[in-house]
Amino acid sequence: MSKESAVVLLDFWASPFCMRVKIAMAEKGVEHEHREEDLFGGKSDLLLKSNPVYQKVPVLLHGGKPVCESTIIVSYIDETWPSPPLLPPCPYGQAQARFWADFIDKKVFDAGCNIWRSKGEEQEAAKDFIEILKQLEGALGEDDFFGGDSFGFVDVILIGLASWFYAYEKLGGFKVEDQCPKFSAWMKKCMQRESVAKVLPDPEKIYEFVTMMKKMHGIE
Amino acid sequence: MSKESAVVLLDFWASPFCMRVKIAMAEKGVEHEHREEDLFGGKSDLLLKSNPVYQKVPVLLHGGKPVCESTIIVSYIDETWPSPPLLPPCPYGQAQARFWADFIDKKVFDAGCNIWRSKGEEQEAAKDFIEILKQLEGALGEDDFFGGDSFGFVDVILIGLASWFYAYEKLGGFKVEDQCPKFSAWMKKCMQRESVAKVLPDPEKIYEFVTMMKKMHGIE
Repeated sequence: MSKESAVVLLDFWASPFCMRVKIAMAEKGVEHEHREEDLFGGKSDLLLKSNPVYQKVPVLLHGGKPVCESTIIVSYIDETWPSPPLLPPCPYGQAQARFWADFIDKKVFDAGCNIWRSKGEEQEAAKDFIEILKQLEGALGEDDFFGGDSFGFVDVILIGLASWFYAYEKLGGFKVEDQCPKFSAWMKKCMQRESVAKVLPDPEKIYEFVTMMKKMHGIE
Repeated sequence: MSKESAVVLLDFWASPFCMRVKIAMAEKGVEHEHREEDLFGGKSDLLLKSNPVYQKVPVLLHGGKPVCESTIIVSYIDETWPSPPLLPPCPYGQAQARFWADFIDKKVFDAGCNIWRSKGEEQEAAKDFIEILKQLEGALGEDDFFGGDSFGFVDVILIGLASWFYAYEKLGGFKVEDQCPKFSAWMKKCMQRESVAKVLPDPEKIYEFVTMMKKMHGIE
């Protein structure tokens, strides 16, 4: 691969935002170099230089040029490597997909954090989290995927976050499958895809990571 | 105009998010019907039905189909009426524009609210606000517009918010022109455009509106 076309991902294994980018690249067959960041020991100079505004992973470097913010990176990947497409072809379908991706970005991760960061109010936080999943379940309707029949943009944006749901369930005392059966069925369908299965880490490992984070934040 | 192609904007005169949509349509020459919402007296059934998730303006109805969230609406307008383009033609330029639009959405309005909602700490809040403008000034660099030589996507997203800056200046005790001269010059250049000049309300009226909001929130 020439220097002009080299693709490098600044990554962190447990980040659901990095998972999106890896799933999108797996869907498209984009070869890339993977650099794991040490977020606790010290971020690389390349990360600090490539994303000076947020200093966060993921960053996608394409021919040395950085693209930041995971949803924007997935959009960039979809435009740069168009086959198979993730966003719908028509502007209205694109606007709908961007609306739900934005809803997910505003709501899901923060609501999950409220569960694991809680000191004794995990079940209250879990109720708010389930309400958000129910809204998403409503948007899914009777379709297999958020993109309709085929796995698309909103599915890529959301499924990485699902790798943390097992930890939320254990800490919040609930089961997604009991509360949102259609949403749960969507998760299973996504996880059967090779692009998703090979990217999402073992939920037990995420649970251990969250437990470690709770200790670091003095929440036990 | 046929029913299938009719464009209707659910609007509120003081909303900087609605202003974006009106500026984008003015740039493209999109004819539309304008319906002012009574946000304090009671939202219309059409608004509640068209944007059930947030129940907020702006909503663009195109052939009866709703598009919500202002940045997504501006993107939709750019794709549906391509001339003159707002987003750059290349995926990398688009990703950069979307990054700064997202930064503006995450930071500017909330930082401004912190000024007018403050009880006695307006100047502290103003310092944080100015820091954000300085970051944007850095992104602007030596260019006339965020889109380079021509008025583009990021300019449309940001300039509506500037109609509130006079109120922030009065309440926070600062001048954008003194703190961020290049940013101030950018504002003036934008305001000379017909599409912007005809959409942005009189800053004194926005100041009166903010004063009314302060009273409503019991902040005086």
